Amino acid sequence: MANAHTTGPITEHEVLSAHEGGKLSVESKMPLDSKRALSIAYTPGVAQVSRAIHEQPAMHTSHTWASRLVVVLSDGTAVLGLGNIGPAASLPVMEGKSALFREFGGLNSIPLVIDTTDVDEIVETMVRLRPSFGAVNLEDVVAPRCFELEQKLIEALDCPVMHDDQHGTAVVVLAALTNATRLTGRSFADTRVVIAGAGAAGIAVTEILLEAGVGDITLTDSKGTIHGQRNDLNDTKARVAAKTNRNNITGGIVEALDGADVFIGVSSSTVSEEAVAGMADNAIIFALSNPDPEVAPDVAARHAAVVATGRSDFPNQINNVLAFPGIFRGALDCGARRITSAMKVAAATAIADVVGEDLRADYIVPSPLDDRVATGVARAVMNAARQDAVTTA
Amino acid sequence: MANAHTTGPITEHEVLSAHEGGKLSVESKMPLDSKRALSIAYTPGVAQVSRAIHEQPAMHTSHTWASRLVVVLSDGTAVLGLGNIGPAASLPVMEGKSALFREFGGLNSIPLVIDTTDVDEIVETMVRLRPSFGAVNLEDVVAPRCFELEQKLIEALDCPVMHDDQHGTAVVVLAALTNATRLTGRSFADTRVVIAGAGAAGIAVTEILLEAGVGDITLTDSKGTIHGQRNDLNDTKARVAAKTNRNNITGGIVEALDGADVFIGVSSSTVSEEAVAGMADNAIIFALSNPDPEVAPDVAARHAAVVATGRSDFPNQINNVLAFPGIFRGALDCGARRITSAMKVAAATAIADVVGEDLRADYIVPSPLDDRVATGVARAVMNAARQDAVTTA
Repeated sequence: MANAHTTGPITEHEVLSAHEGGKLSVESKMPLDSKRALSIAYTPGVAQVSRAIHEQPAMHTSHTWASRLVVVLSDGTAVLGLGNIGPAASLPVMEGKSALFREFGGLNSIPLVIDTTDVDEIVETMVRLRPSFGAVNLEDVVAPRCFELEQKLIEALDCPVMHDDQHGTAVVVLAALTNATRLTGRSFADTRVVIAGAGAAGIAVTEILLEAGVGDITLTDSKGTIHGQRNDLNDTKARVAAKTNRNNITGGIVEALDGADVFIGVSSSTVSEEAVAGMADNAIIFALSNPDPEVAPDVAARHAAVVATGRSDFPNQINNVLAFPGIFRGALDCGARRITSAMKVAAATAIADVVGEDLRADYIVPSPLDDRVATGVARAVMNAARQDAVTTA
Repeated sequence: MANAHTTGPITEHEVLSAHEGGKLSVESKMPLDSKRALSIAYTPGVAQVSRAIHEQPAMHTSHTWASRLVVVLSDGTAVLGLGNIGPAASLPVMEGKSALFREFGGLNSIPLVIDTTDVDEIVETMVRLRPSFGAVNLEDVVAPRCFELEQKLIEALDCPVMHDDQHGTAVVVLAALTNATRLTGRSFADTRVVIAGAGAAGIAVTEILLEAGVGDITLTDSKGTIHGQRNDLNDTKARVAAKTNRNNITGGIVEALDGADVFIGVSSSTVSEEAVAGMADNAIIFALSNPDPEVAPDVAARHAAVVATGRSDFPNQINNVLAFPGIFRGALDCGARRITSAMKVAAATAIADVVGEDLRADYIVPSPLDDRVATGVARAVMNAARQDAVTTA
């Protein structure tokens, strides 16, 4: 692997060199440099461990790596901004995610990319492998199939399962919005939110904001605002339509944003300056599409008091790495059998709390490198899991 | 993890303590301690790698970890001496195997234990996960199902697949027998071999010895010698019957061993001193069952010139770790699509050659800690693979 340069723009050559041979390594935690060590780690010693687990199944949790192993699972159908590039080409992303679980969550993680897009086949595969792992981070699966897949995995596996493109994003958005509304003197109940994009992230952001008490949310998709009179909605959008758009706004993003307090873009599309110009005073704009935000940050700043993006080269990066390592760490540390809504909201609160009294318009979320984040999230998630009584430990 | 004591007998407490939390760790090979590093290993940089693989599928081999990742796969149906204890209880053994791949083969390896014993379901599962790995070490699957499973996996996956309980054992037995016959002045063609046990190991040992030129082999199972007149043989045993027992010996182990040069026990049963007393002068006895050899080493020594066991506390340990790390390393280093008979025989020769001029009755195979073994095996396996034209690299 080539040494990374430390300054200047990142070049394609630098990125490709850094990925040669892959990004992960499996190491032995035990020394294997003597006959005695071999006799403990492998035969004949290991037979005692296997016999013990056979007699006391709970020892599978304490005496193998499985119960704290996160599988990063993808079928490669919605990879970053690249779309459906398939499982093989998605693997570098999943390796990176596993590396982030180690770095920020202190957890073991392996990528598994799967060469089928059939929901039941994916679930069946993971059920068969169930004794091998402790949690599933679902990644880069296309909407609306991702909703059904996540739900079926949760039901079938009885362990923490989370589609990060939905809930990781939603948790960090909630954290950022918590601080942005604090800064602009709003309460969730009185805040009008518009979400552009009704895919994995848009739906999950809607759900968590409703859970957190935001009263007035309107979604838009490529056809305009989502409302109950549309007859072209899939099941997921139809369900959301029933809980949102209380003023029954029709038309497009311009109509939706007229007078709105908050814009959240998760749409991979473009929103005109005219549209955001119609927002309320002291507006909040989260233009999260990568690499091209729905509204350029400098344009957004002309019409908003707080601006966030998904990019690392602007302030207020909405980065999932703030959420998923601590969420899984907390869930696994307390033996949670699932990840509940309350655990996600608790994670968002913990992220927002790291900012604390340092809150400024250009500092509404902590840096992904801030080591207080994952520990704070894990602790909050554990407490919420215990209150929800979903723990075994 | 508790510190291992360094002297005295290994206690169950010591073994269990050493296994707490499992034996493996997944680490990032790239630093993730700056925004720049994150941008290279994960978004946005990683998108360039995924796009490159999507455009040039061969880059999946060079730019992910998969092509050099060995899956240690088991259904837990024949675990060490414990039998069918199931996938969860088998996991410590598979973790140990993955650790050995790292230590002795320098390879990444992950254990996958699978909660089905249906051959087609296991194959289907691995086919779905095919973009995730580069080779399969099949482990602790019961005979005769293991033969069908290995064959179907080889056909379906087009990558190195090896059932180690069969071929790892067979390779090390061939290495040991090469040196034992050298020591006792025998040629393979004129050596009469009796193999007790017609399970995974017994069948594979038979195949590799036939491949290496041993002319006269007789197998026994729990019903006595295997010969063509028996009507209780499964398909595998019937196929072997056609190629062995040229003198059509009937009866049991006593009749089979009468005048035999070599006894190889892979049966988990007991053979009487009377039976081995009838062997030829300067006999060779490999009593390989663990933890209780078919014949106690001191008893065997009264009737044989060379004695080997499967135990680490006696000389001449027939230990699969001499074979599998180098075999997979060699196969993956040259991009082999399968592991051929010639590659296995080459591995055995390489193991025997490490002993070289130091050959003695109590030193017919190298120590598993001898670092010349895996490199020698890998080199020999690569050469054989190229001659067999099964390589892509």
